Amino acid sequence: MSDSATPPAFEHDVPGPVPVLPPPLAETAPAPRRTPAEEARALVASTNVATLGTHSSDGYPWASLVAYGSLDDGAPVLFVSRLAEHARNLESDGRASLVVADPNPRKDVLASGRVTLAGTAERPSEELAQTARDAYVAAVPSGKAYLDFRDFSLWVLRVERVRWVGGYGRMDTVDAASYTAAETDPVARAAGAAKAHLNDDHADALLAMAQALGGYPDATAATCTSIDRYGLDLDLDTPRGPTATRIGFAEPVTAADGLRAATVELARRARGT
Amino acid sequence: MSDSATPPAFEHDVPGPVPVLPPPLAETAPAPRRTPAEEARALVASTNVATLGTHSSDGYPWASLVAYGSLDDGAPVLFVSRLAEHARNLESDGRASLVVADPNPRKDVLASGRVTLAGTAERPSEELAQTARDAYVAAVPSGKAYLDFRDFSLWVLRVERVRWVGGYGRMDTVDAASYTAAETDPVARAAGAAKAHLNDDHADALLAMAQALGGYPDATAATCTSIDRYGLDLDLDTPRGPTATRIGFAEPVTAADGLRAATVELARRARGT
Repeated sequence: MSDSATPPAFEHDVPGPVPVLPPPLAETAPAPRRTPAEEARALVASTNVATLGTHSSDGYPWASLVAYGSLDDGAPVLFVSRLAEHARNLESDGRASLVVADPNPRKDVLASGRVTLAGTAERPSEELAQTARDAYVAAVPSGKAYLDFRDFSLWVLRVERVRWVGGYGRMDTVDAASYTAAETDPVARAAGAAKAHLNDDHADALLAMAQALGGYPDATAATCTSIDRYGLDLDLDTPRGPTATRIGFAEPVTAADGLRAATVELARRARGT
Repeated sequence: MSDSATPPAFEHDVPGPVPVLPPPLAETAPAPRRTPAEEARALVASTNVATLGTHSSDGYPWASLVAYGSLDDGAPVLFVSRLAEHARNLESDGRASLVVADPNPRKDVLASGRVTLAGTAERPSEELAQTARDAYVAAVPSGKAYLDFRDFSLWVLRVERVRWVGGYGRMDTVDAASYTAAETDPVARAAGAAKAHLNDDHADALLAMAQALGGYPDATAATCTSIDRYGLDLDLDTPRGPTATRIGFAEPVTAADGLRAATVELARRARGT
């Protein structure tokens, strides 16, 4: 945190001292993170349900639930019925935003990731329509049931501005080119189940990682709060108070089924076996 | 479904015949449902996280994640930081909407409930501010940590238009007066855990209810998909195909801790004990 009298614009304006988390007691290896653009792409790839913002005819910014898929460049694909207000709104004004929230949030949802993609929704060209339709159904299998309903129409959101929030104090703006160019995390879809499995069945391994690799030899409990291709985030209890650390994998994971080997390697290293 | 050639505006435009669910084989007692206004109030009371739609300064309808509480009349209370775009948006244009989605959705989220509340966000009067603040913290306990941050401001959304969607084919528009006047379901917060408990531990009782009280003596499996003060909804397997039924409680439940007794009474009645 800054110690200047006037807090910079990206910090909360807090009366009195800011609480400080217990620092690590040991040096740790660097633990790289996803870039904000990669975080945005990972969130979009992690689920198939989001909230759409459109302009309603009576002047409200209209928020409504939608299912979505996405093209290879991260552009969301919507398939909406004219029975729904958002479809009629898009027909008269294509400006829209889509917020995707972490489908496996922490207990305090505001500490979890979410991203807003703002842009312009367009009906895809005939050339693109089949690709967009396939992307929608790949993400939303139940969409097959209404694929031929004549009141439904297909839309692609051309992303123009991205705002990512990773939780308290972690946020960034991402330009459209960086969003489009960023690689999707191959473990985005599998991360939720992997996190639950580690916490349910391998709390001892997580604690060993925190103690041996995470800089907190005094940790007494460790909970995985997120996992991605580069490593995992742990919430820790210590006698000095609660804190958090991050542990990087030996190598970035390159496929969804690579998470298990990467975490087993960390657990072995932590236990010196 | 209508059998007229031109489908009415509230039905999907489906090519070919519409699939028909197997009908009940026995008469059943009436099973009342919440009104659309009550459904809307129940959704708002069921969670503390929603998506807000605001007008961004560059013209996008801006969707973003927020925590919220609500006043006794169902008006949502927001407490937002100027570091977030939505707070700056509200300062220049109070028109907003809030979408609340069922926090315990079905596997197909589009089959689950959600509601959009559109209205105008206002800074509460000094008189109302403490009530609004208390309502926020009651719903969002972690809000205590930032209650005194000077970059945060309190807003009350004056609801002007409500659109409720209960799932496929269940939806309605609710006017502001009906929304405000509707009673909150006392079991709204407890429903998610109650549903999970019934499905995990009492599948046999649910099946007995479907067979003896729900009109489907040929049901082979029953899953509770929602529960409210008036009764419960069941998805069923039958040799004639999948279907659904609803079973009303003997009396509406009047307090959160009344769900257990009401479902035990149904189970006993179903088994004739």
